[in-house]
Order: sequence, then C-alpha cells, then structure tokens
Amino acid sequence: MTNQNVKVEIITIGDEILIGQIVDTNSAWMATELNKAGFEVAQITSVHDNAKHIIEALDLAQNRADIILFTGGIGPTNDDITKQTLCAYFNTKLVFDPSVLENIELLFANRPNFAMNDLTRAQAMVPENCTLIQNAVGTAPITWFEKNGKVIVSMPGVPSEMKRAMSMEIIPRLQNKFTTAVILHKTVQVYGFTESALAIKISDWENNLPENILLAYLPNLSIVKLRLSGISENMVELEFIMNQQIDLLSQLLGNTIIAFEDIPLEQLIANKLIEKNLKIATAESCTGGNIAHQFTSLAGSSAFFEGSVVAYSNSVKENLLQVSSIDLEENGAVSQIIVEQMAQGVRKLLKVDVSLAISGIAGPTGGTNEKPVGTVWISACSKESIISKEYRFGKQRNENILRASQAALLLLKEII
Amino acid sequence: MTNQNVKVEIITIGDEILIGQIVDTNSAWMATELNKAGFEVAQITSVHDNAKHIIEALDLAQNRADIILFTGGIGPTNDDITKQTLCAYFNTKLVFDPSVLENIELLFANRPNFAMNDLTRAQAMVPENCTLIQNAVGTAPITWFEKNGKVIVSMPGVPSEMKRAMSMEIIPRLQNKFTTAVILHKTVQVYGFTESALAIKISDWENNLPENILLAYLPNLSIVKLRLSGISENMVELEFIMNQQIDLLSQLLGNTIIAFEDIPLEQLIANKLIEKNLKIATAESCTGGNIAHQFTSLAGSSAFFEGSVVAYSNSVKENLLQVSSIDLEENGAVSQIIVEQMAQGVRKLLKVDVSLAISGIAGPTGGTNEKPVGTVWISACSKESIISKEYRFGKQRNENILRASQAALLLLKEII
Repeated sequence: MTNQNVKVEIITIGDEILIGQIVDTNSAWMATELNKAGFEVAQITSVHDNAKHIIEALDLAQNRADIILFTGGIGPTNDDITKQTLCAYFNTKLVFDPSVLENIELLFANRPNFAMNDLTRAQAMVPENCTLIQNAVGTAPITWFEKNGKVIVSMPGVPSEMKRAMSMEIIPRLQNKFTTAVILHKTVQVYGFTESALAIKISDWENNLPENILLAYLPNLSIVKLRLSGISENMVELEFIMNQQIDLLSQLLGNTIIAFEDIPLEQLIANKLIEKNLKIATAESCTGGNIAHQFTSLAGSSAFFEGSVVAYSNSVKENLLQVSSIDLEENGAVSQIIVEQMAQGVRKLLKVDVSLAISGIAGPTGGTNEKPVGTVWISACSKESIISKEYRFGKQRNENILRASQAALLLLKEII
Repeated sequence: MTNQNVKVEIITIGDEILIGQIVDTNSAWMATELNKAGFEVAQITSVHDNAKHIIEALDLAQNRADIILFTGGIGPTNDDITKQTLCAYFNTKLVFDPSVLENIELLFANRPNFAMNDLTRAQAMVPENCTLIQNAVGTAPITWFEKNGKVIVSMPGVPSEMKRAMSMEIIPRLQNKFTTAVILHKTVQVYGFTESALAIKISDWENNLPENILLAYLPNLSIVKLRLSGISENMVELEFIMNQQIDLLSQLLGNTIIAFEDIPLEQLIANKLIEKNLKIATAESCTGGNIAHQFTSLAGSSAFFEGSVVAYSNSVKENLLQVSSIDLEENGAVSQIIVEQMAQGVRKLLKVDVSLAISGIAGPTGGTNEKPVGTVWISACSKESIISKEYRFGKQRNENILRASQAALLLLKEII
C-alpha cells in the first residue's frame, strides 16, 4: 500500500493472548471492516495487562498511525487496568457517569437471572476528559480520546460487544473525521496448483500488473487464493482496472478458477444447490459431521440441506445406510465400494437429490501399511451419476478432517 | 509476570493478517508452547510484507526481548520479502545451499503429483551468515541469526511447518541457550456465574493470593475460566503453593467447578464416557452436526462416539428418529416433547447408552413472538432418565450454535 492512507493500529490488551490461551480473532474482523471503510491497518500489536507496556505501545503507535484502537482490558475484574492506564496517560481522572449506570441498569433489566453488583456499578466510573460511547450490549462503555490530531479509542474485547461498537459507532465516526482513499480487495480462488506452480503459470501477468495493484498468494489446503489489493482516489476507475486484470487472469487459468470472490467453499456450493433447487445430505465417517456443520453454519441452510448421518461406527453404516456387511468385511470401511454404498444409502434414506459420503483414517491411530493414516475415500452421488476418489492426506487428525471436507466439496462441485 | 524471565517476541509477517483475510492462529499456539518451555511472550506484532516496517519492528523488539521469532513471508512468491530483508539487515548475502535443495528434492520425491520449478529451487538460496535449520515438511528453510546476545529466527507461516520447526528444533535450541525461570499456568473452569458475580464471590481469596501468582478471568460463553499464573525459581514449591490456592478456591466454589484443567468441555465429557464405558449418539437439528464434529475432533473418539443423525428437516426427524408427526404439528419442532422424542429416537436407532438432542431456532430467520430466534430445547437421555431444558440465547446464528452445543454438553454432564 502507498503512504497516502489514513493509518490505523490495533492494540489488543490481555495476558490470555500472550500466553496462548485464546486466539485473537477480533483483529482480523476489525481489519476487514476498517479496510472496507477505506482505512489501512498498519500494525496489530498484542500486549500484556501492564500499564508501562500499554503506554509504550500507544506512544509507538502514534508515531506511525493516525488512529489507535484498543480492545480488551476493560472488564470489571482486577486484572483489567486499561481504563486506569489511559486516565493517567491523558492526565484526567475517573468520574461517575449516570448515563453509563442507566445503560447498565437497562441491560440487567433484560437479564432477570443475573443481579447487579458493586463491580458492575463501578463500570460507570469513566475518564472525565473523553467522549463516551454507550455499550448497548455490555457493561463497559467505549471511551474516545483525541490528542494532537490523533484518535485513540478503547473498547471491550468481548467479540459481540466490540463488533457492535465498531460497526454502529466507531467506524461511522472515523469516516466523519478522516478523508480516506479507496482501497479495494478482490480475490480469485484457484484449485489444482501448488503455490509456486501457480506463480510460474501467471508470472507474466503478475509482472505487468499496474503499480497501484498488489498481488498476494494465500494457500488454503488445496486451494490458492489470489488476492489483488488496489488503491486509488477514484473508486470507479479502480474497479474497472482491477476487473480488467481479473479478466486477463481468467483467460490464463480457465476452469481451474473456482470462484471470483472470497467466500467459503461451502457457501459457493450452497449457492449452486439453491440455484438448481437441489437438496443435499451427507454420510460422514472420518469427517464426523464437519461438513454438516459447515453447511448449517450458513444462514438459510434449510433451503438446500436436509440432514446427515454421522456413521462413525460400522454398525451405523450397516444399520442406517444399508452398507453390506460382507463388503465391509472384505474391503474395510475405507474403500470405494463402501463409500459408494454410503453415498447411495444416505441419498435414499434422506430422500435427497445429491449426497456426499466420506470414509477415511483421520488418525493418529488406525493406519495400516496399505491404508496409512490420511487415506480417505470420498464419493459424490446424484440421481444420474456417482464419482468416487481416493485421497492421501497427512498425519494430523484435525488437518485431515479439514482436507477431507474441502476435497468432498470440490468433488461435489463436479456433479452439480 | 516479573522481569526476570527470558522474553520472546513474535512478529508475524503478511498483508493477509492486516487486511483481515486470515486469523493469526499461529501466535497463540507458539505462545502456549513457549510458556510451557519457561519463556515469557512479551509482545505479538503483526506487520506488512514491507522491508522498512519489518526492520522497525525487529529493532523495537530487540530493545524489549532476548529472542525474536518471525513467522511468514518466506514463501516462493514475489510478495514474500522476509529473507531478502533479513539478509540486508544482517549485512550478509544470499548463497546457494545444496543441503536445502536436497531437502526440497526429497519432499518432491514423496509428492509424485507435483513438479519442482525455478521458484521452488530458489528456496535453496539462503543468507550466508546464519545457522540453517532444514524444514522437513516444506520448501522454505528456517534461518537462525545471533547478534549482541539476541537470537532472531525466521520460520514459515504455514501452521504445520511452523509447528514442526518450533517443537523439534527451535524450542529445544532456545532451551539449550537460555536458562529460564519456571512459569506455571493452572486453570479452573466455573459454571453458573457472570464474570463479575464470580469476582465478588472469590474477592477475599483473590486479594490474599501470593505475589508471585496472578489471576485472570476468561469468560467462554457460559463458562468462566480462572487462570492462575505463577512464577518461581523452584518448580516443586510453585506447584505446591498453586495447588494450595486451588484447594481454597475449590472449598469456596464447590460443584460449580466443572474442571481443574484447561481442556475443552467435549474432552471432559469424553473422558467421563470412556471411564464409565458409555457410548453416545446425538440428534442435532439447530446445532447441525457441531457436537458430532466436536466429539470426532478428539483422537480416539470411536471409543465413546457411535454416530449422529443431523435431523435438519422435519421429515428426517419423522422418518429416522420416529418423531410423531402429530406432536410436530401441534408443538412445533422446537419443543420439549419433540426434543425428547429425538433423544429417545436416536438412542434406540443407534443402540447407544446415552444421547443428546438439540432443536432450536439459530436465526437469523425463523423466530416468532412466542419462540424468538435463540430459543433452543435440549434433552439428554440415558436408559434410566431423561432431562430437558429450554434456553434463550441471542440473535447471532453462529454464537447460538456454539452456545447450544456448550449447553448440551453441560446438560449431559448431569446424567452421566
């Protein structure tokens, strides 16, 4: 990115991040939303619940950025010290604010099972010299400071509270205050290449990209996402230039491109199923319900998803999916014949148009010389056709589950 | 934490983190492993693929920490510049290393579907003045620099490659080089309190904690994790003092404590099922297979998990789980009678000892005045007993799925 952008730094506060107890998912969400609003995130920093460290990070961030957004460290308990620290930094003091208490009382009125207490009430003590923003879904208010043209905001680390504050309050106010350039990101998802083979395939195209468009390669299991990031003063012109480049890329890569947007594979499949008015069911052994979970995480999934049989044991495969016990005995559960019987079985049982079946050895145990850990058979089946394929993934259980789920959705794409 | 620790800073490199395209899960994993090995993670910083920014972050980190660990930015494509940047910083140049090429050739020999190319081969160009560590599972080697008593390591950002390098190579070498204090973390999981109600309940205990033990509150849906972090020169003594404090806490909180360790709830349930030699199945509507997925993410899940019926549509509820169509018509799918029929149905169908059934309105649509989005009925059933409970969660689909899954496991805990 160029230097003409309005720059934001995110500082997350909390020992739990630095000892690895939680993964910081807030920052990625914030960065996405800030980008959409035309702001560039220059750095993300995670620091301890420690006053000296918080101040040091704030001082450094102000040298690089125009806006500093703090999350976390403002809960009601003793380990949280952000409010006191910012108070000292901005030479102000904590004062009681009746509007915050009112907001807290309102929250508790809607939660009959919980009672207010002194710690909750203490959340109404706020820095005197700042702009207060009420937190509609939690007890800690958002505090907004300005100093030497810089904006410093402290907000809760609880994801639902942070998200509401960012969307409804903070981003709109930042857009009012700053004039931002246009930043656009476009993603093309490609299947069937390693990262470096893809880079060679498109190297001429990459070398001829306009200067205001950057390219990044983001491998995600068997898919590589190509992300183009463009910056300009002019939205219409930028959109036009980026689409031109994507057309050229499309001519190069043909049908190895599976999507021209950054949406999850399951959403892509869902859209296609809905468009064709098809209902799907899955019969999952080693993926253990993960594909069903991915489908049902999408709003509106009842339009295309009927249900699943998680057939983890052989007896469920036999009794529910009508898999032949003789074939099971002869071929083992991880075989073409069994996975095809599972796919056909679940399609008939749940009376759907298409089905997916997955049977494999996720590990860490259960592997043999002939079928090592990571061996997975997948079958996709419709009224007219059935295709099946064997895969060899790696040794990591959870990665095998993810890889098998992705491979299954890619296989399904071939028959719908 | 005190200042006597050996401090590590993690710097993640990659535009994809700062535009929010991926969530940085590496840092949490690294922090956990470093902590176990006695190192304190002082800061985590995410910066762009930009030489100036990388150098600035490295300079600042060296002022605060003894060890700086870089992840990412060393792939074969043009957007990755970490190798060149560190080369310039350490006043050295890139030279060809035959051992790296050999390692790459070995990797490709095991991947018959992929061919090497010039970009892959260029990974064998490495900084001259550094210690090289081969990457057994990827093409980019790990580079280890030392300067003024500080250690600077650059490793891949691909999680599987990073994890292997950290566990097998980097942490053992760091432990050889530095003498570390003992850091212990112990977690107690509590159910049935808000964060602040819990803080008041245990305030006397908290105020009397020894100085070398810190307490943090980590709310996770309906569970609050209390994390005690202790530091000492003496492992045995520290363990003793921390266990004393946990005994006191246990007397205070009684059976609201659901675990004395930081393990996922599903693992806790799994351990109990295995201990009692019970098999489980689930009938999932609104959770859509998420509980099955949680169980089967655990290694060895076939010892207790038989399978699931993801009964997303009413016809699957009727046809597979023998739910009465008259009761469905009269009460709707989200009701006590239906969820109990689902629980009993799946227990008989899959011939298991205990079962869980979940039916609810995850949202965003499907709510009514009487049963708004977030209404969920859950039933846990064994041969002897059945308990059912109604819940009102919030408006966010994915949070409702997670909350319903957690509530179901907590309900199950009451009957096993």
